Parts: sequence; C-alpha cells; structure tokens
Amino acid sequence: ETMDKDALPDYEYPDLDPLPSKIEIIPPCDPTADDRLYHICITAISLVVMLILAVLSRRMKVGDRPKGLLGLLSPVNFLDHTQHKGLAVAVFGVLLCKLWGLIVSPNPLPFTADAENKQNWVILGVFYYPALYYPLLACGTLHNKVGYVLGSLLSWTHFGVLVWQKIDCPKTSLIHKHYSLFSSLPQIACLAFLSFQYPLLLFKGFKGTEKTNATEDLSSSYYKDYVKKILKKKLNKISTSSTETPKLPQRIINAVKSYIYTPEEAFRFPLKLAISGVVSFITLYQVGLLLISTVVPPLQTARLGVDENIANVLAGFKIMLSPDKREVVRIVVYYIWCVEVCFISAMTLSGLVNLAMLMRSMVLHRSNLKGLYRGDIYNVYNCQRNMRASRPALVCWMGYTSFTAAHLCIGMIVQTMVFFLCLLIAVFVIIIPVLHRQNLIFFQILWSMWPFWLMILLAVLIQHITSRFCFIKKMSGTKDLHNRGSLFLLTYLLFPVNVLIGVLLALWRMVVTALFNIVHMGRMDISLLNRNIEAFDPAYRCYAHYLKIEVSQSHPVMKAFCGMLLQSVGQENSAAQRSRDAEEGIQLVQQDKKQPKVSSAKRARRHWQLLYTLVNNPSLVGTRKHFQRQTTESFVNGSLHHSTKEGSKKEAAAEAGTAASN
Amino acid sequence: ETMDKDALPDYEYPDLDPLPSKIEIIPPCDPTADDRLYHICITAISLVVMLILAVLSRRMKVGDRPKGLLGLLSPVNFLDHTQHKGLAVAVFGVLLCKLWGLIVSPNPLPFTADAENKQNWVILGVFYYPALYYPLLACGTLHNKVGYVLGSLLSWTHFGVLVWQKIDCPKTSLIHKHYSLFSSLPQIACLAFLSFQYPLLLFKGFKGTEKTNATEDLSSSYYKDYVKKILKKKLNKISTSSTETPKLPQRIINAVKSYIYTPEEAFRFPLKLAISGVVSFITLYQVGLLLISTVVPPLQTARLGVDENIANVLAGFKIMLSPDKREVVRIVVYYIWCVEVCFISAMTLSGLVNLAMLMRSMVLHRSNLKGLYRGDIYNVYNCQRNMRASRPALVCWMGYTSFTAAHLCIGMIVQTMVFFLCLLIAVFVIIIPVLHRQNLIFFQILWSMWPFWLMILLAVLIQHITSRFCFIKKMSGTKDLHNRGSLFLLTYLLFPVNVLIGVLLALWRMVVTALFNIVHMGRMDISLLNRNIEAFDPAYRCYAHYLKIEVSQSHPVMKAFCGMLLQSVGQENSAAQRSRDAEEGIQLVQQDKKQPKVSSAKRARRHWQLLYTLVNNPSLVGTRKHFQRQTTESFVNGSLHHSTKEGSKKEAAAEAGTAASN
Repeated sequence: ETMDKDALPDYEYPDLDPLPSKIEIIPPCDPTADDRLYHICITAISLVVMLILAVLSRRMKVGDRPKGLLGLLSPVNFLDHTQHKGLAVAVFGVLLCKLWGLIVSPNPLPFTADAENKQNWVILGVFYYPALYYPLLACGTLHNKVGYVLGSLLSWTHFGVLVWQKIDCPKTSLIHKHYSLFSSLPQIACLAFLSFQYPLLLFKGFKGTEKTNATEDLSSSYYKDYVKKILKKKLNKISTSSTETPKLPQRIINAVKSYIYTPEEAFRFPLKLAISGVVSFITLYQVGLLLISTVVPPLQTARLGVDENIANVLAGFKIMLSPDKREVVRIVVYYIWCVEVCFISAMTLSGLVNLAMLMRSMVLHRSNLKGLYRGDIYNVYNCQRNMRASRPALVCWMGYTSFTAAHLCIGMIVQTMVFFLCLLIAVFVIIIPVLHRQNLIFFQILWSMWPFWLMILLAVLIQHITSRFCFIKKMSGTKDLHNRGSLFLLTYLLFPVNVLIGVLLALWRMVVTALFNIVHMGRMDISLLNRNIEAFDPAYRCYAHYLKIEVSQSHPVMKAFCGMLLQSVGQENSAAQRSRDAEEGIQLVQQDKKQPKVSSAKRARRHWQLLYTLVNNPSLVGTRKHFQRQTTESFVNGSLHHSTKEGSKKEAAAEAGTAASN
Repeated sequence: ETMDKDALPDYEYPDLDPLPSKIEIIPPCDPTADDRLYHICITAISLVVMLILAVLSRRMKVGDRPKGLLGLLSPVNFLDHTQHKGLAVAVFGVLLCKLWGLIVSPNPLPFTADAENKQNWVILGVFYYPALYYPLLACGTLHNKVGYVLGSLLSWTHFGVLVWQKIDCPKTSLIHKHYSLFSSLPQIACLAFLSFQYPLLLFKGFKGTEKTNATEDLSSSYYKDYVKKILKKKLNKISTSSTETPKLPQRIINAVKSYIYTPEEAFRFPLKLAISGVVSFITLYQVGLLLISTVVPPLQTARLGVDENIANVLAGFKIMLSPDKREVVRIVVYYIWCVEVCFISAMTLSGLVNLAMLMRSMVLHRSNLKGLYRGDIYNVYNCQRNMRASRPALVCWMGYTSFTAAHLCIGMIVQTMVFFLCLLIAVFVIIIPVLHRQNLIFFQILWSMWPFWLMILLAVLIQHITSRFCFIKKMSGTKDLHNRGSLFLLTYLLFPVNVLIGVLLALWRMVVTALFNIVHMGRMDISLLNRNIEAFDPAYRCYAHYLKIEVSQSHPVMKAFCGMLLQSVGQENSAAQRSRDAEEGIQLVQQDKKQPKVSSAKRARRHWQLLYTLVNNPSLVGTRKHFQRQTTESFVNGSLHHSTKEGSKKEAAAEAGTAASN
C-alpha cells in the first residue's frame, strides 16, 4: 500500500524518516518440500520411470528392430512438421527457465550451498537439468498407455512440488522479494501444460482416437494436402511493384501487414521453429523481469531515502538546486522518479519492439521456407547455394533454438540500455525544461542558430524546386535534363552549403543505422551487414544454415512422396510393417531400387510421380543422386552460369526425364 | 628539440618546473599583405576579369546563339568524361579548404573582426567564396588565349598572396601554432596547380596543340574507343564461384585485390567522381590535422606540467599509485604518454582505413558504372529501377560531391573516437599489465573461468566432430543425414550449453556489426542496412540516385552515337557548324526526325546503328520515347514479371526492331 502512494508523480514531501519502516527484511524461508530432498527423490523416480519405459519398449518392439528403445533415445523428432508439438515445447520451456535460474541464483544446484564454486555447479547443472526432464519427453514417445500414466504422474509431481514450494515461500531475498515467484511462472505454466496433456493423451488412448492426433508423421494427411495445394495453385500474380510503385498509404498498410502473422492453411512450422518461438517468448519475459527487478526497487529505495543531507552532498559538488533544503529534497525525489519512469518505459518499449520482431520473424520464416520449398534459393539467400547437408550446417541446425534465445536476451538488454539513455536525454533536455519553462538551453541554442537552419532549408528548397521546374523537362513521356548550364552553375555555387547539409545527412545516417541495428539485434533471420557480406554476420549465417538442413531434410513434398511409397509398399507387403519415420521412407526408396520384382506398371507410375514432383519442386533436385554428375557437366558447358528459377526448373525436368527413361 | 625528447617512452623524471619555458606565446601577427585589403582588391579584379571575359565571349559568339556567354555561365560540364579535369578539381579543392577555414577559425571572413556574429559571417562566406573563385574556372571555358592569360594572372595573384602571407606569419594562435600553416597546404597545392596549368594551356594554345587535349567532348575518341572495346570483347568468362567456392588463399588474394584500384584503358571516371575523390582526400587530411592539433598539444602540455602536487590530488580521490611522490609523477607522466600514443595510433589507423575505403570505393564506382552501362541494373541495385532522371535523383546528383566530403569527415571523427577508446582499453587492461606484470585482473578473471571455457570448447568440438563423422553420411556423391535418433538426442541434451555459446555468438555479432558499420561509415557507395531496406540509408540512397543521373545522361555509348550523328550532319552541312555539347547532339537527334530530305540509305544506316547500340546496351532503352508505352503493355501481358538481364535484352532487341522497321 505504501508502494502505490510513492509511485504517484507528486512533488509532495515524503515523510522525514521513512527508511526504517520501508526496508522489509525477508526471513530465510525453508519450504516444507525441501529442495535437496525433492531433487534426490525425483532423480530416483525419473531413473525408475526410464527403466520401466525401457522394459516396456523391449516388449513392444516391432518386427526385428528394437524400434521402441531407439525411439526412447530420441524422444523428439525435430524434423517433423505434423507431430503434436506441445510436449517438446513445454519441456524446452521448463529447461530454459531452469537454465535462467542456474545463472541468476547464487547457489545454482539444490544439492549444495557452496556459493564459492558457483561456476562448477552451473556447469554441472547445465547437463543435469536436461537429463532430469528427459523422462517427461520420453513418456510420450511410446504411444503407450503405461507411458502416459507415468508421464502424468511425473509431471504432476514436478508441478505439485513447484507450486507447493512457491506457496510456502512466495518471498525470497534474491534480487527482489517477488522475483523468484514471478520468474518461476513460465515454468509452472509449462509443467501445468504437461500435467494436463498427459492425462488427455491417456484419455484419447482409452477412447482409441489418439492415433489420428499423434506422431504418425509420414501417414499424416498434411503433406498430401500441401502437395495438393501447390499443384492446384496457379501462379497468376503479376508483381507490378518492380517499376510501378504503389501509393504511400498502400505501402504503409503493406508494411504493417508484413508484421502481423496470420496462420495459413496447409503450412505448419517445423518443430524447431515452434520451440524457438516459445523459447524466445520466455526469454523476453525473463529478461524483462530481471531488468525491472534489479533496477527499479533500488531506485525506489533511493527515492524514499532522500533527506535534507542531499542538499549538503550536492553543495559539495557545487550544485545548487534551490536555496531551500526542502525544495532540494523535492526536486531530487522528482528527478529520481523521472529516471524510474524512463527505465520502465525503455524496458516496455524494448519488450514491445521484440514482440513485434518475433511476429515479423515468424512471417519471414514462413515465406523463406515456402520460397526454398519452391526452389527460390536466389531470392532467399541473394546468392546461389547448395541445399545439401554439411558439417557447419548441421552444427548451426543443432544450436539454432538456443542461439535464438541468447540473441534475444543480449538484444533486449542492449535495447533497454540504449532506449533508457535516449529517454533520459529526451526527458532531462527537452521534456522537463519545457514543462517547467527553465533551463531551456537546448532550445536556446537551436533558436540562436536560426539563420543557419534557414539557410539549410532554403538551399534544400531551391534545389528541389529548381530540379522540379527548371532542370527536368517532360518530353513525349520521357523525362530529360534541361538547362544544363544553369544546373552546373547551381551545383558549383551550392557546393559549400551542400557540405553542411551532408553533415546533417551523415548524422541522420548514424542514427538510422544504429537504431535499425539495435532494434533488430535480437533477430537471427536477417543480416545486420551489407548485402555483399551478409554471411559474416554469425547469426544470419547460422539461420541460413539452419534453413538448409530444414529444407533438405523435411521438404513436405519429399515427405508426401515417401509416404506414398510406404503406402504402396504396405499394400504389397500385407500392410503390416508400416514404419513411422521419414528415415525409413528414404531407406525404402533405396531398397526399392534393388527389388526387381516390382511390376513395370507400378514402376512407371512411380517414375511419373517422381517426374511430376520434381518439375514442381525443383529444390528437391539437389538431393538426387544424379545431380552432382550433371552439375559438373553443365558447368563445363557453361549453361549453369546464372541459374535462375527457370533454369533450375528446366534442369529438374531434364533430371526427371532421365529418371523416367531409365 | 624539446618535443623529441618528450616523445620518448621514458620513465625519466621531467624537469621540475618546465612550464614557463614551454608555453610559447605567439604574438598577434599582421601579414604585410593585409587580408582585408587583399580580399577587396581581388574581388574587384575578379569582377573586371569576368567583364572582360563576357565582352570577349560576345565577340566570339558562333552562329546565331550567344554560345560563349552561356559557356561562361556554366564553366564546368559535370556530365563529361573526357574533359581535362584538373582545373575543376583544383578549384573545388580550394573551395573546400576555404569552407574548412570558415568553420574552424573564430573570425571567418577577413572583412570584419566581429567574432560575435560568426554564424552570419559563415553563411555569407559560404556564398562568397564560390563566387570569388568562379573566375578561375571561367577563364578556361572560352578556349581563348586572352582567357588563359587572365587565368594565369588571377591564379598567380591568389597563389602569390597566400604564400606571402604564410611566409610572413607561419605561426598563429589558432588551435596550434602550426595548424594554420599545415591547414593551408592543400589550398597552396591546388593554387600552384592552377598557376602552372593556365600558362601550360596558353603555351599549347600558341603551339596549336591545345584542341586535342581540351573539352571537345563529343568529338573525342574516348567514346568511340569505349564502344569498340565492348563490341570486341567476348563474354566468355564462366563464373564458377556460384557453387564451387575457390580455396581460401585465393579468396584472400581476391579480397585484397578488390581493394586496389588499377586504372583501366577505355574507362574514365565522370568528372563528379574525380572531384569527389580529390575532395575526399583533402577532407581526410584536414580532419586528421584538426584532430591531431586539438588533442595532442594539450596532452603534451599536461604531461610537461605534471608535478608532485598530482600525488595529493590523486590521494584526494583515494588513488595511491605509489608511496613515493616522484614515483607517482613518473607513473602519471607515463600514463599520459600512453594516452597520447593511443590517440595518434587511432588517428593514423582511421586515416589508413579511410584511404583503403577510398580505393575500394573507386573500384566499386567503376564496376557499378560499367555494370549499369551494360544494363545490369539488378546486380547493382538488387532491384529493378527506372534509370530516368527525376527530381530526387537530380537533387542527390547535385549534392553528391559535398555529401561525400561530409560523410568522410563525420566517419573519420567517429572512427578515431571509437578506435581511441578501444586502444585505451587494450593498452590499460592488457598491454601495460602484461608489461609490468601487475594488475592482471582481466587475465585473472579469464583464468578463473577456465572450466567454463573448457565446457564451451568441448561442446563446440563435440558438435563439430559428431556432425562430421557420425551424423553425415556420404552416399553416391550426395551427403545425407544419418543416425537421426542420436542427432536429436544430442540436440536436446546440448540445448542449455548452446544457449551459453549463443551469448558469446551474440556478443561477437555485436562487435562485428559495430566494427563494420564504423569502418564503412564514411563510404556512401554501400548501404549500412540490411539488403531489403537498403534505400533507407540516406547516403546509399543518394549514391544510387547519383548513379542514375550519371548513367542516363552520360552513357559513353550514347555519347559515341551522338558524336557520330553530329559528324554525319557536319558532313552534310559543310562541317562548319560543329557544336560542342552533348545536349545539342540530343537536340539534333530530335530535329533529325523532322527532316524529310535525308536520304533513305542514310536513314537506314542510322536505324541499324541504333539497333546495334541498343542491343548491346539495353540500359539505354529506358531513355527511348517508345519505352513507356511498351512497358505498360508488357505489364498487362505479364511478361515483365521478373525482368532479368536477359529479359531487358530481349526487350531492347524488340524496341530496336520496331525502331528499325519504322
């Protein structure tokens, strides 16, 4: 209740001695569910759960391969578009919150209170927590009722204990009394989601409807729908934007629209991008919370602690705000309050900017993915690239989600600092002087320079007006220069003035560039560098590599194709041995070639399917076997000089043609 | 001689009381050639020279138009490639030095000592100086011996008086005793060049060889040589760089080569770019000089003024460098010397960087211009643009030279400050502690974090090694993923570590981006922004517009064509009325159409010349009359959807075809 009163923008004189009543001493709180005991228990339980799951998976093994156990070791298929993404996303969210807690809190792991070797405990924790939450993911992979029951129990335990601890000790001495509580909110939300999701899956399993919703990746209808959609769609959009620019309001509306993400039918994000989105959001929340709770409470304390001694301290630095000491206190309190407001505004602004950037990133991810599926490599990367998997590409793909979170974190901290500085300057140089009509030094300087501004303005106006009316002549639909003599004369005479205009322009350039880079610092999907050296931006380089792997390994058309192959194989082989992984689909394609017993009609049909797919999706060509030999040949012939979209389409047709004629 | 001793990196104790002997009092110096009187005289002389030139030009007028007077009013043809550029460049150099003096010196104009209204005098000076040096340019335009004599006299006067003044008063009290002298060196050089050039022109005029060297733009052989060269050249380079990347050493050599400008035959810079180059160079010199002479002498004075009181002052701030006061003085002197060295290094570094950037800019200007001449609009601008003259393009073209200078000035100041800060940090945090083996706090922190660095290193290594050997399988020439299960598991387990790696990556991104932008701040020919919003960078936008005007108005092929037309007209009309401007050439093209008496064979020949020119230079198509109608039509037909290079070539052929068939 005291906080509310203090937050008012008042000139009121605070109580003379408010300090003793204000500083709240938070007693050390030990929750009933002791953290150390809890961790020891839950680790043991998790181990037991994993053992049960392993036994279960051995029993469930299909055919001759221990599919279940393998599945248990890779609970998330990151290259899947159709999977129900909730479980993985929630577990990653919990992990991120735990990592954040590791770094912020003074004793990172509950097993010890040894704050001296914090670093080593952090390193241990970095590997301990992924292992601890692993069973939460693994329980869902078997698509088995026992797994769901175990998952429900485990997530309930995690959730219950965390909530219990927070109810027991809502206030801690860490950073701010409520910081710990607020910081664990995303974790609670993720665990709550898991606690709800596992029973739901169990319920669906009992009702038998689970199969339709679950992870049967290749047999999902999504890929077929995607293929149907691209085969149906006609490319009849004529882009008039290249030379005929639209009107200004239309351009503004388009720009705003490009920042709003609207879901599209027949397009789903890859799992890694979905995880990145949620992880980014949680990072935003955590960084914002940390910034607010480290900076604002000390400022508030300082504001409440201001007394008449401050006048003497300031006099020591030869600053005389007012002859009256009470007046000095009032002014100082007001100034500190302004700093507080500036900081909170900067933080909010930075948060909103990053939210907008997150939305924009999603729009861009989608358009990039769709472009690469179509084979528009040049438009996405601004250069021709090889879309095959490679070592650096794979490393970047592995780290992409984590890097997103880290970049957003650093970006938001830098943004907040910069915005805070700018707001401080704006408030103390412009707003407060205007409000109080004193210390208008900035405006006085500006005003005293009016002849200079007038000269600049006149020079700019003269150049624009003469350009428009004297030096450009419209003639039979073409604009051309006119009065060249006067143009050259004016250019010579205005040379010194233009240098001064150029200085203003250079300052403006600095502001624009700095602002753009700071605002976009948290985004990995655009390069902050010039177009010719984009790849030197490590974040963008990573994103480009990530897209490579994603497109080359989980192209929806390829998956639809693999699904179709599996179906036809299934029809032949009595439909029992249907496997559930894209990898197997690809392996089957290769096995397929060795089987001479397939009827020629079926083979012909498949060739035609391949042909059709490849013609409409030229980016798939790169993954074909014949590609490399052909490329070398075509380089020798010089025909791949500028491989535009059309070029690669022709090649795809040629490739498919040779495939069909074999 | 005292300066040299002080500059040594010694720990030697300076003389106890060196101050009185060191501060040199510069007496106010009045040169024999009083500046005010000189300016009044030279203004009058210039006026008289202009009047003589005007009378002369009226007498010289050719045909029925007062060509001479018009020429006198536009002494520089900025859209000329073949002109002898020396005169214009030198006058612009003098102007820039004068502008610099205007801004730096406390009383900008010699007519008054009124330092209060400096601003108004600066504004006056900004317009006075171009007018003052105008006759120096105008004397060369008439190609007349009297003009050259007047030019020689005028430039000798300017040069002589300036040198005389500097010999009279080599030391001034402005900034540093020698600043004024060094600052006027480029001005002296430019005036000396003029004083040498005018007599040379006069001499050539007497010998009759002047015509070949001078400004007969269209009849110059340069344009014909250019056309011959492009018609001769075969495009048989196959760019293998798109997918087959060259080896690393080759790439480094290429990168270094792209920063070295080597003159090419059959390519000359437009006059405006030549002026920009020289103006940039002078700006570099002036900014460097100003920075050195404002910062270093005060630091030297401070270093010489350090005495034992400094120990007490430092003790006031609770800094105890040493118990011995003499030792304290030695340390402080050493530190100030370090700061000096850092500043000079930063300035030198910034100067060298900007010189390299200047060279690189020249290389890029040439490749951009040649690309645009060829019609490679998309490669230069990264989007399709209209190459016609327009209001904003013309305004940017007018200011381009000035803006270059201003950007370089601001860029160099920012660079020096940033480099200075970085060097200071490097010296005081790394180098001095290492040299003296004390205060190694930075290294101690780094060393105490070794488990963290080890973890990061191991995580990165593991990801790279497993990617290389476990997860990527080479199969019949194509790389593909392998062991997907383990890959997914590793990705999940390394998520928290990768977040920490991502933080380092984000910091690295910040450093790279900031460094790139600061280094390239003075360059207008590249955008500092992302490729999609390049045009929001005001400097790059200006450069793009500048190129538009330059290419659309002074395309060498168009000029060669106009020259040919003029020649054939000249052959018909008894070769007397040869005019010297591109504008007239174009006007003749239009008049030509109205003349029905031209023989059909000649008309056919011209059509074929046009056809050939347009096919080889598609960028010219935009300036053709039929273009706009055709574009509209082709938009309706949707054929201009992606107007690649080929597309525009085809169109040029079509356009030329219709032109030829008329």
